[in-house]
Amino acid sequence: MSSIGPPTGMRDWLPQDALLRQHLMETIGRVYRLYGYLPIDTPVMEDLAVLLGKGGGENEKLLFKILKRGEKLADAQGAGGELADYGLRFDLTVPLARFVATHQGKLPKVFRRYHIGPVWRADRPQKGRFREFYQCDIDVVGGASPDYEVEVITATERVLKELNLGKYRFRLSDKRLLPLLLEGYGVPQEQIGPITIALDKLDKVPLDEVCAEVQKILVARPAVSTKVQQFIRDTDEIRKVSARPAPYAFFDKVLRELEQSVVYAELETVHNNSMCIMHSVLTVNAHSSIVFDPILVRGMDYYTGPVYEAVVEGYPSAILGGGRYDGLIGQFAGKPIPAVGCSIGFERILSILQERKAGQAAATTARVLLVNEGQPADLLQQQAEQLRNAGLYVETSLAQDDLGRQFKYAETTGILWAIRRFDQAASSVTVRYLPERKDLTLALADFLARLRGVE
Amino acid sequence: MSSIGPPTGMRDWLPQDALLRQHLMETIGRVYRLYGYLPIDTPVMEDLAVLLGKGGGENEKLLFKILKRGEKLADAQGAGGELADYGLRFDLTVPLARFVATHQGKLPKVFRRYHIGPVWRADRPQKGRFREFYQCDIDVVGGASPDYEVEVITATERVLKELNLGKYRFRLSDKRLLPLLLEGYGVPQEQIGPITIALDKLDKVPLDEVCAEVQKILVARPAVSTKVQQFIRDTDEIRKVSARPAPYAFFDKVLRELEQSVVYAELETVHNNSMCIMHSVLTVNAHSSIVFDPILVRGMDYYTGPVYEAVVEGYPSAILGGGRYDGLIGQFAGKPIPAVGCSIGFERILSILQERKAGQAAATTARVLLVNEGQPADLLQQQAEQLRNAGLYVETSLAQDDLGRQFKYAETTGILWAIRRFDQAASSVTVRYLPERKDLTLALADFLARLRGVE
Repeated sequence: MSSIGPPTGMRDWLPQDALLRQHLMETIGRVYRLYGYLPIDTPVMEDLAVLLGKGGGENEKLLFKILKRGEKLADAQGAGGELADYGLRFDLTVPLARFVATHQGKLPKVFRRYHIGPVWRADRPQKGRFREFYQCDIDVVGGASPDYEVEVITATERVLKELNLGKYRFRLSDKRLLPLLLEGYGVPQEQIGPITIALDKLDKVPLDEVCAEVQKILVARPAVSTKVQQFIRDTDEIRKVSARPAPYAFFDKVLRELEQSVVYAELETVHNNSMCIMHSVLTVNAHSSIVFDPILVRGMDYYTGPVYEAVVEGYPSAILGGGRYDGLIGQFAGKPIPAVGCSIGFERILSILQERKAGQAAATTARVLLVNEGQPADLLQQQAEQLRNAGLYVETSLAQDDLGRQFKYAETTGILWAIRRFDQAASSVTVRYLPERKDLTLALADFLARLRGVE
Repeated sequence: MSSIGPPTGMRDWLPQDALLRQHLMETIGRVYRLYGYLPIDTPVMEDLAVLLGKGGGENEKLLFKILKRGEKLADAQGAGGELADYGLRFDLTVPLARFVATHQGKLPKVFRRYHIGPVWRADRPQKGRFREFYQCDIDVVGGASPDYEVEVITATERVLKELNLGKYRFRLSDKRLLPLLLEGYGVPQEQIGPITIALDKLDKVPLDEVCAEVQKILVARPAVSTKVQQFIRDTDEIRKVSARPAPYAFFDKVLRELEQSVVYAELETVHNNSMCIMHSVLTVNAHSSIVFDPILVRGMDYYTGPVYEAVVEGYPSAILGGGRYDGLIGQFAGKPIPAVGCSIGFERILSILQERKAGQAAATTARVLLVNEGQPADLLQQQAEQLRNAGLYVETSLAQDDLGRQFKYAETTGILWAIRRFDQAASSVTVRYLPERKDLTLALADFLARLRGVE
């Protein structure tokens, strides 16, 4: 059994990665709690009827179904009935809708929650795509006002800042905006979808290619095509500008151009709503990186209003996205429930952090190895206890290895400091900083301060 | 769909319980990391061959099996083949054995790990027993010396102390000890098992009943029966005594009594090993609560040496248990691998904390509600941002509710403090302490200090 491993497309988490994942979960959770969002959890499995409730067709293929247990199975097989009764959740949104229906009476009218947990999809495994992976959702259930969008965006920007991912940009639009704009420009209904799909590739495909595709779609209407392409080119330029007034002036101009169109009234309402959110986000957090981006397309069908996403410099696609989805959460509760949410690309961010080894260092610097130079094991352990009481994360070398091997062991497991001697009476330690193979003797308190400085 | 809920025997986690569970996981993890133990994780599912590898019979009934996906299913059904290929893990030990086999080359020779995660068993659901529940294991893989037992016990005692569960006692014995003692007293081989089972009930059943059962088992050998019962009564007395010398003197006497028996040499070795561990634990941590308890029975077959458990005053059965199990971890790696481990009764401890509402208070005191007395939402949110920058966990009242409702909302969600006014220029706040309906104005720094003092 030498090739024994986890199931196809699933991963084991060795300590360094498990620590990093934990660090990411704790950071995200802490920031959202700062905003009054609290954690919830649901079982990994749900009734098949729940999972397949709405738009089941697409998801059914991805489902890991749970075989019925015991005698019922034989009955079902005999009767040609269903073999499975439960399935593993494929996202955290369906379980949230079910959770809201189950606990209706117990939840506050406006329910702020976050949920970080694994989901499963029987996709074809490929690089960077797993069959078991984490999702991280934050939602306000029951919040109809745009103030909740402002809060979700502000909280999420703080998450990005705390994660030190580098320069990022938040983009805001409204699901309804692009179709209205295209309609205003004279694009026929049946071509709005294809153009939207073309625009959705803008982060991965050069602007010229996208415009060429639009040209092809609108080949029968050259005048419309020219206007739309110009709009796309201008917007693409403008959305890179962080200086605030410029984009507003530009979109005011666009709006004025469309003043005669049949959709103008609707367009103005949606546009004003977006502008209100923009304005509030910037009032709440003057350092916000938000830009207005009317050609932003968020793939999900279920969005019904404002949508947003964030991109990190150096990475092509969005690392998180969200929006208002007023039609989804009430599906099991049997009544409409407004909702705003944001889904953090947990695995994407984790792989960025892994690449940069950033969190890893943070998660491990504090660990030290208390080496064994021949002392009795119980005295060594007793010293380790004292060091732990002082707040150190101490691994004790209990194996009968020579000193070189002990140092080597520390290095391979990411430990930077080895304690060679602990003088309890003087409260001082002789430590080796392994990367530089350098020994020094200092007061325990100073050593602690130094470790914490590095943290 | 008004009765929609989670699958039978599984639970949703509402915020208060989710926070408490998180607090428990973080506390346990932090303490074990203090000892150099690091987290790992594995997929929730494993190959059926792995899960059913050893002693599969018992576990197969409990398995949630995963239906094969796609076309393969039709083939399998047609050919009368297997319908399932994976199953949900029913414990964390089998996955650890598989993990060790998979990553053999990458793990240190002595591998300290902890693993906290859900497992699934298709048991009949009943009060306090769930089909999805958490386990929490700490293990040293590859550690043959009794020093590792000392470390695991010391670390685990620190977990109990940090959890503030109240008075507890650690009991130590050795899997091999009781059978040897009984054999030494002249109990026939075939009656050792039944007596062990009777003794295992000692925490739940009165001593007299246990002795009566032993008498029945040994009815054919009255002299042996008397000696064994006396030994049980004395030991039961002695194991309640925490003053150290008394128990040692008693067991020395027992050992001398058996000096003529055929098992004496073996008995002495095992006894000495236990005494060494006892002695070292007390050297490492003078405040240890450990007692030697040769009538301790740990149910699991796989233990091969020292075993231990902890009981908390006021609760009948052990809340954690562990021991040495040298035969299990190497099963997939194809070679013997010594191991010491401890399994914390995560769900038991969680329900004790829930009963006491202990952790709940800790997890929620820091939260405050910034109430809305008619200010514009964006200014309110901007103030909330300032308060968060200062370190407060602030929920902003964005609903258009009157003040009474806002206070009420805070109380029902466990928030103790409402901020009525935040004077940014003076850096002062007017707050209401909700349990006493009392308002006061104080400097923000003082308010923060007060909140942290409560934490």
